[in-house]
Amino acid sequence: MTMKRAYNFNAGPSALPLPVLERAQKELLNFQNTGMSVMELSHRSKEYEAVHHAAKERLKRLLNVPDGYDILFLQGGASLQFSMVPMNLLTEGKIGCYVLTGAWSEKALKEAQKIGLTTVVASSKEANYTYIPPLDDVQWPKNAAYVHITSNNTIFGTQWKEFPNTPVDLVADMSSDILSRPFDVSQFALIYAGAQKNLGPSGVTVVILRNDLLERIPDGLPTMLDYRTHQKSNSLYNTPPTFAIYMLSLVLEWVEEQGGVAAMEERNQQKAAVLYEAIDESGGFYKPHAEKGSRSLMNVTFTLPNEELTKTFLAEAKERGFVGLGGHRSVGGCRASIYNAVPLEACEALASFMNEFRRRFA
Amino acid sequence: MTMKRAYNFNAGPSALPLPVLERAQKELLNFQNTGMSVMELSHRSKEYEAVHHAAKERLKRLLNVPDGYDILFLQGGASLQFSMVPMNLLTEGKIGCYVLTGAWSEKALKEAQKIGLTTVVASSKEANYTYIPPLDDVQWPKNAAYVHITSNNTIFGTQWKEFPNTPVDLVADMSSDILSRPFDVSQFALIYAGAQKNLGPSGVTVVILRNDLLERIPDGLPTMLDYRTHQKSNSLYNTPPTFAIYMLSLVLEWVEEQGGVAAMEERNQQKAAVLYEAIDESGGFYKPHAEKGSRSLMNVTFTLPNEELTKTFLAEAKERGFVGLGGHRSVGGCRASIYNAVPLEACEALASFMNEFRRRFA
Repeated sequence: MTMKRAYNFNAGPSALPLPVLERAQKELLNFQNTGMSVMELSHRSKEYEAVHHAAKERLKRLLNVPDGYDILFLQGGASLQFSMVPMNLLTEGKIGCYVLTGAWSEKALKEAQKIGLTTVVASSKEANYTYIPPLDDVQWPKNAAYVHITSNNTIFGTQWKEFPNTPVDLVADMSSDILSRPFDVSQFALIYAGAQKNLGPSGVTVVILRNDLLERIPDGLPTMLDYRTHQKSNSLYNTPPTFAIYMLSLVLEWVEEQGGVAAMEERNQQKAAVLYEAIDESGGFYKPHAEKGSRSLMNVTFTLPNEELTKTFLAEAKERGFVGLGGHRSVGGCRASIYNAVPLEACEALASFMNEFRRRFA
Repeated sequence: MTMKRAYNFNAGPSALPLPVLERAQKELLNFQNTGMSVMELSHRSKEYEAVHHAAKERLKRLLNVPDGYDILFLQGGASLQFSMVPMNLLTEGKIGCYVLTGAWSEKALKEAQKIGLTTVVASSKEANYTYIPPLDDVQWPKNAAYVHITSNNTIFGTQWKEFPNTPVDLVADMSSDILSRPFDVSQFALIYAGAQKNLGPSGVTVVILRNDLLERIPDGLPTMLDYRTHQKSNSLYNTPPTFAIYMLSLVLEWVEEQGGVAAMEERNQQKAAVLYEAIDESGGFYKPHAEKGSRSLMNVTFTLPNEELTKTFLAEAKERGFVGLGGHRSVGGCRASIYNAVPLEACEALASFMNEFRRRFA
């Protein structure tokens, strides 16, 4: 079968590494000579438990997760974590602190407001989320339960360059840049991430939490929404999304083979540089949304001089095999999502198209 | 690649139809000539939306879902529905009625007790769940919010033969027998089912609900746990488990090709008959757990004369390629789960092994 891989710039679900897909395809009917697909294995079988364990151990190695932290595999995406974080940690009399850097932070805040007291400690909303606000001058409330940040903002194309050292427990939604660069897990109390950008297909959510948080969880939560349920049962309280966790494990193996998270970062910097250069050297034809100091390595967002040109650009790009370049429906414009599995070659091809398009229309 | 398919009697995740796996394998790298895997498609793309739509329409056709009902694709399994049902429907002053027929009903009740008032209207717990209790003599409370049943009990091997016509809204956990036989959806207010038995791989949960229920839902629920969120957004509020829904769609297509749910029932009756015959004609060597009138067509549960023989039976069965015959860890003994995708041939092979084993050890 001949096939041309698309230049996949989808914001998520997004590109997966080709060798991972090939491996999954090869063993789809017969996993490790069991005579069954990995999807047909009992989640209590030793074959599946090895997959589950490997996924956890690989993630632990790749992120250098320190002792005293645990890794959970949940369902429901970051959107369910927006509620689970406050249900578990925003106890009576405590205040959930939120940093607003985009639409996803706003949604996280909205869910927390249903559960308990909240406050916004920093925000770049007034500047249409073009930058990541510093936390230096924050007056932390005495009863802060945690401070919540979104590490990378897919819609606005901004990203925390350095994670803050906060005097209160730091909680991060890392859905769109986990595994894209090394960072110090011990700076965080809790990290969560939907898989469908850098980790695997949609359908599994990773939570990394410091175990002492478990002691704060109030009794009486719905069992499935209590982190203790999943921590105690090694994320096997009920049937987990086994195929998604298997794919996660293969993606993590691929990242290890590529040289780990540091190697990913180097590639991601190269890839982003190619696109930001096409923007910066366009003489204002392509306008970046994010300020330079807050530019995302994962989502490159930009606009063209007008709506008409944007449409033409997207239509021509599509014809040439570039997929997923439309900006989020809430902001319009263009966005190239260049997660770990997007090859440098795809970014070079896009930059070259951008340059060519600009020469024709500028 | 030569390969022998296992005789897969797993309780879930469980066997999938071989043609479905072959189709998924074939198009895993390049879905409909997009140059992408179905896992790499945006959930907002027209290609994925067609998959999503087809899954919904096929389920609607197969189950004859009447107008006024909607189908949702959620995450978290039946275990999360144990909480979502009362969060959405067990409003102030109302009473959630529960019929206890096994471990899963008990769990459903336990979660409802955290949310509101409940009562047990019928139970076979005192008989170790060997039968489905009739509802004829139930004194229904005036403020009943709903009555909850478990249509098939995987652990104890019992199944409702006829669904009750209840004077209050009927809610059913059909995780382990949906699509195994025709039934009248209009008897139910809400049906939910984790996919990993008859519908597909684990990771997606189907909810079928009568739309007027939406009007009863209290405001202020976490967005992801409010049925209205998913009904309004066609189950695309956040990223759905796209691959699991794709597999669901393929399984539904396969059921249609096989002749629909009525054809499934005929096959399932044949399959179950083969195994119950091996039990009934064993002169008491194999003892069924369920009473005859409540026997499940999906999970055939039985014990051997003693623990030693059970171990030998399971060990020999495993050697011969029978997978998943151990009873649930909470009850022991043996269990053959024979969902839609398990072929008659597998049941015949198991019955023949059971007969041969009995002749050696009786």
